[in-house]
Amino acid sequence: MQHFASDNYAGICPEAMEAFVSANAAHAPAYGDDEWTRRVSERLRDLFETDCDVYFVFNGTAANSLALAALCQSYHSVICHELAHVATDECGGPEFFSNGSKLLTAPGAGGKLTPDAVREVIARRSDIHYPKPRVVTLTQATEVGTVYRPDEIAAIAALAHASDLRVHMDGARFANAVASLGVSPADVTWRAGVDVLCFGGTKMGLPMGEAVVFFDRRLSEDFAWRCKQAGQLASKMRFLAAPWLGILEDDVWLKHARHANAMAQRLAAGLAAIPGAGLLFAVEANGVFVHLPARVLDGLRARGLRFYTFIGAGGARFMCGWDTQVESVDALLENIRALMAEA
Amino acid sequence: MQHFASDNYAGICPEAMEAFVSANAAHAPAYGDDEWTRRVSERLRDLFETDCDVYFVFNGTAANSLALAALCQSYHSVICHELAHVATDECGGPEFFSNGSKLLTAPGAGGKLTPDAVREVIARRSDIHYPKPRVVTLTQATEVGTVYRPDEIAAIAALAHASDLRVHMDGARFANAVASLGVSPADVTWRAGVDVLCFGGTKMGLPMGEAVVFFDRRLSEDFAWRCKQAGQLASKMRFLAAPWLGILEDDVWLKHARHANAMAQRLAAGLAAIPGAGLLFAVEANGVFVHLPARVLDGLRARGLRFYTFIGAGGARFMCGWDTQVESVDALLENIRALMAEA
Amino acid sequence: MQHFASDNYAGICPEAMEAFVSANAAHAPAYGDDEWTRRVSERLRDLFETDCDVYFVFNGTAANSLALAALCQSYHSVICHELAHVATDECGGPEFFSNGSKLLTAPGAGGKLTPDAVREVIARRSDIHYPKPRVVTLTQATEVGTVYRPDEIAAIAALAHASDLRVHMDGARFANAVASLGVSPADVTWRAGVDVLCFGGTKMGLPMGEAVVFFDRRLSEDFAWRCKQAGQLASKMRFLAAPWLGILEDDVWLKHARHANAMAQRLAAGLAAIPGAGLLFAVEANGVFVHLPARVLDGLRARGLRFYTFIGAGGARFMCGWDTQVESVDALLENIRALMAEA
Amino acid sequence: MQHFASDNYAGICPEAMEAFVSANAAHAPAYGDDEWTRRVSERLRDLFETDCDVYFVFNGTAANSLALAALCQSYHSVICHELAHVATDECGGPEFFSNGSKLLTAPGAGGKLTPDAVREVIARRSDIHYPKPRVVTLTQATEVGTVYRPDEIAAIAALAHASDLRVHMDGARFANAVASLGVSPADVTWRAGVDVLCFGGTKMGLPMGEAVVFFDRRLSEDFAWRCKQAGQLASKMRFLAAPWLGILEDDVWLKHARHANAMAQRLAAGLAAIPGAGLLFAVEANGVFVHLPARVLDGLRARGLRFYTFIGAGGARFMCGWDTQVESVDALLENIRALMAEA
Repeated sequence: MQHFASDNYAGICPEAMEAFVSANAAHAPAYGDDEWTRRVSERLRDLFETDCDVYFVFNGTAANSLALAALCQSYHSVICHELAHVATDECGGPEFFSNGSKLLTAPGAGGKLTPDAVREVIARRSDIHYPKPRVVTLTQATEVGTVYRPDEIAAIAALAHASDLRVHMDGARFANAVASLGVSPADVTWRAGVDVLCFGGTKMGLPMGEAVVFFDRRLSEDFAWRCKQAGQLASKMRFLAAPWLGILEDDVWLKHARHANAMAQRLAAGLAAIPGAGLLFAVEANGVFVHLPARVLDGLRARGLRFYTFIGAGGARFMCGWDTQVESVDALLENIRALMAEA
Repeated sequence: MQHFASDNYAGICPEAMEAFVSANAAHAPAYGDDEWTRRVSERLRDLFETDCDVYFVFNGTAANSLALAALCQSYHSVICHELAHVATDECGGPEFFSNGSKLLTAPGAGGKLTPDAVREVIARRSDIHYPKPRVVTLTQATEVGTVYRPDEIAAIAALAHASDLRVHMDGARFANAVASLGVSPADVTWRAGVDVLCFGGTKMGLPMGEAVVFFDRRLSEDFAWRCKQAGQLASKMRFLAAPWLGILEDDVWLKHARHANAMAQRLAAGLAAIPGAGLLFAVEANGVFVHLPARVLDGLRARGLRFYTFIGAGGARFMCGWDTQVESVDALLENIRALMAEA
Repeated sequence: MQHFASDNYAGICPEAMEAFVSANAAHAPAYGDDEWTRRVSERLRDLFETDCDVYFVFNGTAANSLALAALCQSYHSVICHELAHVATDECGGPEFFSNGSKLLTAPGAGGKLTPDAVREVIARRSDIHYPKPRVVTLTQATEVGTVYRPDEIAAIAALAHASDLRVHMDGARFANAVASLGVSPADVTWRAGVDVLCFGGTKMGLPMGEAVVFFDRRLSEDFAWRCKQAGQLASKMRFLAAPWLGILEDDVWLKHARHANAMAQRLAAGLAAIPGAGLLFAVEANGVFVHLPARVLDGLRARGLRFYTFIGAGGARFMCGWDTQVESVDALLENIRALMAEA
Repeated sequence: MQHFASDNYAGICPEAMEAFVSANAAHAPAYGDDEWTRRVSERLRDLFETDCDVYFVFNGTAANSLALAALCQSYHSVICHELAHVATDECGGPEFFSNGSKLLTAPGAGGKLTPDAVREVIARRSDIHYPKPRVVTLTQATEVGTVYRPDEIAAIAALAHASDLRVHMDGARFANAVASLGVSPADVTWRAGVDVLCFGGTKMGLPMGEAVVFFDRRLSEDFAWRCKQAGQLASKMRFLAAPWLGILEDDVWLKHARHANAMAQRLAAGLAAIPGAGLLFAVEANGVFVHLPARVLDGLRARGLRFYTFIGAGGARFMCGWDTQVESVDALLENIRALMAEA
C-alpha cells in the first residue's frame, strides 16, 4: 500500500540508484576529492547557469540550518513564515547550528510571505534587546503546497537586500516548484535575488542528501569547514554525490517532479468532485490539503492509510512523490468517496 | 590503483550493497519507523548480548560528537589521548556539538591511554576555572593501529567510574579491533565498562553511517531529539540501516575486518624485511606506520600513490581496507624496495 | 526629572550603597570565597526558610538564561507567556546559553499563564521534530504589572511536575510581587512548587546583580562551573554580594518594594479619575499600563519624559521604582491632565 | 593580612569608589544611554589617540570570550600561548561563547609567543579536518609577569595579518604592562597591529568590569547585540562605566600600576638576596614567580598566607596589586628568610 504521509516514504528512483551503484566500481579518494562530486557540482552550475558554490550535506535539517548559520550570527534573527518547516519541524535545528539565532515568524495567505509581512517584522524593533533581522527564508514549494512566482520572490528579495538582509530558500521541494512554474531554475533563484538555495535531493528520489547552493559566493567563505565541524562531511562523498548525476541527466528530476505534481492534481480534481471535501490551499506542487469530516479521516486510518493532519482541525495532508501511482491516487479517492457516502 | 591513504577510499562491500538495494523494493515509513531499522537494532542487541539502545547517524564526526555531548555539559571536559581523532581531526566537532566542552589530552605509548595518564588529568585541577572531567574516550582500534585489550579498558573504566566519569569508545575501526583481539563485542565494551560505543560502519564497507550504542540506557534519554536537532536524523532511514543487515549477517563484518588486518600484517611483514624501513607502532589492526626516507616517500607519491604522513617526520601511514588486494600490498612493497635500493 | 521608563533608571538605594562601601574595607579572597558572599547566602536561606543553593550573577539576562540552561538540554523547550521578558527582550539569550532550546509561547489574560494554556502547549506535539517541553517559566511580577497568587503558581507547578517539567520563576520584580501579595517568599516559591528562582537585585536598588536560587538542589549540580564558563563569575564577588546584605537587613527590600507599589497605586488612582485614560491591566505591582491618546503621549515626550509604549497602540507603560517620589507621580498626573484638557 | 594570591584580592581604589558613589546622585537612563558611559568612552578614545569603538562588560572571561567570538567562527581557531589565561583558566569560556572555536596553543619562553611559534601553528595544517586559524591572542602583561615590547607585538601582528588572522590582546593587566614599558597605550596596541584589546578594569582597582576596545571598527559590527544576548549588558551601566572615570583622570590607573610593579620589584630584589630562592621569570610587571623549597611554601601557608603554586613544582606566584603595601612585601620577605633559615 502506498501512503500519502510524506514524499520521503518513497524509495530511490531508478536513475539515482543506477548512478549510486555505478559509483561503487572502484577505490576512490574521500571527502569530495572524487570525480562524481566534481561532475555533479559542474552539472549544478550548468543547471543554474551561474558559477555558484556547491556543497553536499546529509539532510534537510542540516542544509537549512548550516546555510542559515552562514548567513547570520547568534544575535541575529531569521524571518520566516509561521508555517515554515525550519520553525515548526526542525526541533530547534536552526537555533542549534547558529548558537541561538531566533526565528521571527510572520503570517501570510497560502503559506507564503509577502513584502508587507516581511517589512512589518523588519520594522518591528531596532533596539538591542531584540535579535536583529538578517535573513529572510522562503520555502519553495511551501509547506502547504503552494509556489512562489519569480516576481513574488523578487519583491521580497529586493526589500530584504535593501534592508541588509540575505535571502535563503528552503528548497526541499524545489523540483516540484520548478516543474509547477515551468521556469528555469535560475529565474526562480538568483535572478530573483536568492542568495542561497538548499536544493532538496531526498524528496526527489535520492537515498539521502541535499545540495547547498551559494549564488553569492562571498557568503560561502570557509563553508567546507562549517560542514566538517557540524558532522556533515561525508567521507565516502561519492555516494552522496553520484545519485544527483542520475537525476540531473536528461532532466530526470523534472520528469519525476512533474509526475508527483500531476498525481496531486489528479487527487485534487477527484476531491473537488466530492461534496464536503474542501480543498484548503491551491494545489500548485505535490501536496493536497483538504478538509474532511473526522470520521472520514478515522476511516482512512482504520483502513491502514498513513497521512498527517497538522493543518488545523479536520485538515488532512496528502503528499505525492515520484513513485506515487495513479492506482494509489484512485484508490485513495475511492476510499474517501466510500467513507463520505457512509454518513 | 589502490591507495593506502584511508580505509574510507574503499567503496561499499557487496553484502552491504545488496542489502541497500533490496531495501528499495517499496514505499516505507520514514524516520526509522521501518522494518530494516527495527531489524538492525535487534541484530545489534543480539551481537552485544545486551538490551542496548541504538541510533544510526550519518558519520563519525556526528556519532562521536553527539555521544560525547550526551555524556557531559559544556563546562565539563573529555579526557582523550593526544592523538585521538576527536582531538586532531574533527575540526572542533565535539566542542561544537557540546557547546564548548574541552578535550583534555594525555600522552600514552602506542596511542593508548593508561590509568595513570587518566588519573593525572582527573587529579590535575578541581577548581571552577577549569572544566570538570566527566568523560574518558578511548579509540578502538587507536589512531596508530594498536588495540586496547579488555583488561586495559576495564582498568581505565573502573578508574573513570570511581571518579564519576563516563566511558565512551570511538569505534570507527571497532571491527578491526574485535577481529584482532578475537573476543566478543560484549567483552571489549560493556563488560569492560564502556558506557557508549560509536560503532563505525563506513570503514567496514557501508556507504556511510555509524551506530551509536548506549549500553547504559540512562544516558540515552531523549537522544532521538538530540539527533534530530543536530541534523542527524535520516528521513529515509532504511537506507542508513539496511546496509548493516548485510554485514551483520554471518559475521561478514568480521570477515572483512580480518581481511584488512591480514593485509596490514602482510605489509608489515614485508616492511620488516626491508632494511631501513622501521615500523613505528605494533601492527594490531589495519594500519601500518613506518619510517621511510623522505626520498622514498617522495618517490611513492611520484608514482601516484596516496597516503598520509602526519605522524612525525618521515612517518608514513598505510591503511588497509576490506577491499585491499594482496596484489596492491605486494606492489606497494615492491615500490618501496625499489625506491630504497635506488639510494 | 524622574522618568517612568524603567525601574532600572533608579540608582542604588542607601542601604545597598552603604553595604557596598563597607565591603571595601580590606583585602579579601576572590571568586566568592569571602565573608560577604557567605553571609548573604545564609541570609537568603533564612529568608526562604529552606536550605537552598544560591549563586550571584551579574544581570537578569544571565540569571534567567543560565537557570533555564541548567533545567533543559538544547533539544528541549521552555514554555512561557507570549509577553515574557525571556521571549521578547533578551535578544535570544536563553537560546544562546542553552545552545538552541526553543521558547514556546502561550497566551494568557493579564500577562499570566494558566494551567490550561500550559497543558495545551505540553499536549501539542510529542514527535521528535518538535522540541520536547521541559520547563515552565513564570514571571513574577509579570511584564504587565500583575502578580501570580500562590495557588495559581501551585496549579501550574503541579501540572508541570506531573509532566516531568521543571518550574522556573523569573523574579526580576519578585520583591514587588511579594510586597503586593503579603505572603512569605517561601509561600510563593518552593512551597508552591517553584524549582528555581531568579531573584532580581538590580530593580530592588542594587547597582547590579541577581541571585539564582535553587530550591531543588539536584538541579544545581556543577552550576558554579556553568557560571564561570559563561562569564558570570565575579572575581571581586564581595561587591556583587554585599549590597544584598544592605537590603535583606530589616526587610529593607520589602520596604522599597512597597513604596514602588504604592507609587504605582497612587498613579493608577490618579489616572482612574481622568476621563479617557483607561488602565489596561490590574495594577498589582509597580507598573501602570494605561491607554492615552497619541497626542498626549507625544506631549509627555515633548516635555522631556521617558517611558515605553510597547503594549499595543496607545498603551503607555509607567514604571515606579524604589526612588520614585510622590512629587514625580503627581507631576506626571498633572501633565497628563493638562494634555488631556488641551484637546 | 595582605595576601599575594591575586591582584583581584584588592578592593576598589579610592578614585574609582569616589566616581562610583558620585554616579549615584540621580535617576539616569539605562543600558549605556547615560553621560558617564559616554564620557568614559570619549576618555578611552583620547587615551588611545584613535576613534576606537568601546564596550563595557562585567568581567574578563566575558571580555575575552566575546571579543574572540567576534573575530572568528566556530570552525576557526585561536592561536595562544600554552600558558594563556584563555586556555588554562576560563573553563572553556572562549569555546562556549564562540560555539566551538578551538584554542591552538604554542610554547614560548617567558610566557610569550614568538613569530616563529605562531608561524608554525599557522602552517601546521590547512585541511578542513582542522579548525582554520583566524586569530592570534597575546596576553599583556603575560601570565608569568613578563611584558611584550611594541616591536615584538608588531612582528607577530604583521605575520598574523599577512595570513588573514586578526590580533587580539588580553589586557587583564594592560596597565601594568604600559606602566612597565613606559610607552603610550597606542604604541603597544593599534600602532603595533592589535585589532581588539580587552582592557582590564578589575585588577586596576575597579569593583568589576572590563572594556572591549575595537581599534578595527569593522570588527565590532553589531557587537552591542552580541553583548546583550550573552548576558553582558548592564542595565545600570553607569555603575560599570563611572569607576573608569575615576582612574582615567590624571593617569591614576598608571600611578596604581606603577605602584604594583614597584612592589613586585621590591619583592624580587629581596628574593634575589635570599640564597636558594630562584626567580623563574623576568619581573616586568606586578607578578613574581619564584622557586622555593616545599617546606618554605608550606610554612608560608601555615602562617596564613595565600598564594598560588601552579607553575611547575616548587614555583610560587606572588601578585602585587594597587593596594599592596611596602610593609606587606617586607613581611613576606621576612617570613621567607626565616623559613629558609630554619632548614
